[in-house]
Amino acid sequence: MLKPHPISESKVAATLKRIAERDTEIRAWACVVNEDSLAELPPIDGPLADLPFGVKDMIDVAGLPTRYGSTGVPGHPATFDATCVALLRAAGAVPVGKTVTAEFAYVSPGPTRNPHALSHTPGGSSSGSAAAVAAGMVPVALGTQTGGSMIRPAAYCGVPGFKPSFGAVARNGMWITCESLDVIGWHGATLQEIEKVAAVLLPYPTAVPAPTHAPVVVVIEQAPGGVPQAVAVDAVRRARDRLQAWGATIAPKPALAEASHWLDAHHVVMHYEFARSLLPVVREMEQSLSRELLSAVDRGMAIAHQRYWEMRALQTEQRQRWREQFGEADFVLTFSAYGPAPEGLQSTGASGFNKAWSLLGWPCLHLPTCTTGRGLPVGVQIVGPWGADSQLLAWARLLHPLIDERSALGLTAS
Amino acid sequence: MLKPHPISESKVAATLKRIAERDTEIRAWACVVNEDSLAELPPIDGPLADLPFGVKDMIDVAGLPTRYGSTGVPGHPATFDATCVALLRAAGAVPVGKTVTAEFAYVSPGPTRNPHALSHTPGGSSSGSAAAVAAGMVPVALGTQTGGSMIRPAAYCGVPGFKPSFGAVARNGMWITCESLDVIGWHGATLQEIEKVAAVLLPYPTAVPAPTHAPVVVVIEQAPGGVPQAVAVDAVRRARDRLQAWGATIAPKPALAEASHWLDAHHVVMHYEFARSLLPVVREMEQSLSRELLSAVDRGMAIAHQRYWEMRALQTEQRQRWREQFGEADFVLTFSAYGPAPEGLQSTGASGFNKAWSLLGWPCLHLPTCTTGRGLPVGVQIVGPWGADSQLLAWARLLHPLIDERSALGLTAS
Repeated sequence: MLKPHPISESKVAATLKRIAERDTEIRAWACVVNEDSLAELPPIDGPLADLPFGVKDMIDVAGLPTRYGSTGVPGHPATFDATCVALLRAAGAVPVGKTVTAEFAYVSPGPTRNPHALSHTPGGSSSGSAAAVAAGMVPVALGTQTGGSMIRPAAYCGVPGFKPSFGAVARNGMWITCESLDVIGWHGATLQEIEKVAAVLLPYPTAVPAPTHAPVVVVIEQAPGGVPQAVAVDAVRRARDRLQAWGATIAPKPALAEASHWLDAHHVVMHYEFARSLLPVVREMEQSLSRELLSAVDRGMAIAHQRYWEMRALQTEQRQRWREQFGEADFVLTFSAYGPAPEGLQSTGASGFNKAWSLLGWPCLHLPTCTTGRGLPVGVQIVGPWGADSQLLAWARLLHPLIDERSALGLTAS
Repeated sequence: MLKPHPISESKVAATLKRIAERDTEIRAWACVVNEDSLAELPPIDGPLADLPFGVKDMIDVAGLPTRYGSTGVPGHPATFDATCVALLRAAGAVPVGKTVTAEFAYVSPGPTRNPHALSHTPGGSSSGSAAAVAAGMVPVALGTQTGGSMIRPAAYCGVPGFKPSFGAVARNGMWITCESLDVIGWHGATLQEIEKVAAVLLPYPTAVPAPTHAPVVVVIEQAPGGVPQAVAVDAVRRARDRLQAWGATIAPKPALAEASHWLDAHHVVMHYEFARSLLPVVREMEQSLSRELLSAVDRGMAIAHQRYWEMRALQTEQRQRWREQFGEADFVLTFSAYGPAPEGLQSTGASGFNKAWSLLGWPCLHLPTCTTGRGLPVGVQIVGPWGADSQLLAWARLLHPLIDERSALGLTAS
């Protein structure tokens, strides 16, 4: 057992103070802990001692209400932490509050604003997690991804964001909207924070040695489901050029199924499962739910079992085929989003391209690399084969400094 | 939408009356609905209209407390149904209460007795579900299986019990003790009830036509992890003989990895995951938990990531290899348990042999076939390839009358 030591109340208190100061504008938090309650917390030493973190309001934290981004949910205090929260707490970290999610992690946004431009969306559905980290309120925040809900807000808010391999992080204590797709991930102020959390939550050794060979990289510059903006395409190309100049080999692209098949498959699997997961909520509080959510439930319930199961089979087949074709390549280099955060708070942006990786269940990591002339963050996504999360993080540690243009150009926004 | 019709209060009221009469002895229920609350239920017509069902106390039912078989859990009324409960409710079925589970679906038994012999265990961890159905209190009850928690109590209590393919039934709203193993299943008074529920909960068309060829059957008469009693071996052999006499072909057995590897792999995956899932409970209420549970958490937390991930890899590999070697076989015929329900209520019996199928994630169905001289039920288990749940149920419908010796011999206990 770990040696107890008194929780650094001042560190957590400072976090709460920062939140109080900055959140009036950003609105990243659904609720925060009561400062007095911290004194009652059992003090724990550990690799994450005193690390304050936020938790997307789809995931339970003992003593705090879980409201799933929905005003209709009564929000009794949760009796137990979710597994992921308990593991971080046991390592010494301190959950300081719940971060805003789109309504039941679907599309209807919460009130959160992008810290880099208040009239722009922070992305979603893990809106509050990305914004809270980007605004310097917490060094780490947990989120979830079904389509693009970790990577897109990471990109829009300009912070590293990690979605592990499907099935790697236990989901007990979160609302699972889609059994075959949902993954718990996290945003971090830096890659170091991403790695610290990975060491606690991933079920593999994460302290893998830095790679000693130049990487073999699959570069994907097309984006099924949408047309990327020039600034996003350029970010990927410049990163590719820097990696090549450093010795990286560009590998042939595995043959994806038709882009439309991927999107269809994700659409069918997601809506079939989402509808069933939300059915009990519709029963209890239909009148409190958005039209978008109710319509998604209707569409999902109308999907025939047969069609759903065919798409699950396509998912399984593609997971296998992609792995085979990927061969000895080390990672994919691609977009995180179609462009920087769009203006407006009515939509959390498009996630077409993220869906293919969510369907595959491969680990994804957003790395911020530059900002637009207007100060909006842009970056790239790297994606590794299933189960190779530790290797992907090791590559990022080695290569991010090489492709990160922000400090060199003085464009870092925070 | 389904046409509303008034809930048959008399049918549910009769169920509650039966429970009140019989449960003093059996103790299958953790709680039941308040009869007055039924009047408030929205009336629903549907394929399961008025079907009363029980729900293992690991799974949420809106308005009822979830206590996980643990006296320490405060048990606030759940806000929402679990997905599986909501789907049954939307089909017209009525959840009438929560059935007793072993403490957090692990090994420490609840108070439930075997309806066939009150001094014998009903099996576990879905003890109350099997006993409630066996005692004629409800026609259907939901349970869960991580090792042998559906099939073993079905065998001990002498009712059909079904554990679907891993990943087929959505788990939102249940306590997931083991992300890679837990499956929601159900006990039914007859195979017809099992099939009715399957038609609502399984994500494939279940109305498959009856097979028109004699089956190809893999027979397994050895039981890794324990020595089966003669009565269990004989039940499998007699079922085999009857199937052969009817034209069935006995197929060669796929090469299992060493039995000890299977048990090791299940042990490691289960305890690693179980420990993390229970960590938050230990934090909140350590003093209320059994020594067995606390010790399992300690052992699970001590398992190295590396070893866990190796066992997950073995699981994935065996799922693939078994499917290939299974070839054109239709199902496995094997034990459900090492013998009839053992005497005593301090243990829920051994589940060594069930663990291999749980690790594989294949669908399993217990079929009662006979009773011992002392009136204890015995039966067989049939196991189909992953995703072929509907075919397995179709085989059972066709063949159970052929191997069921109970009515012919006048041995049926209920």
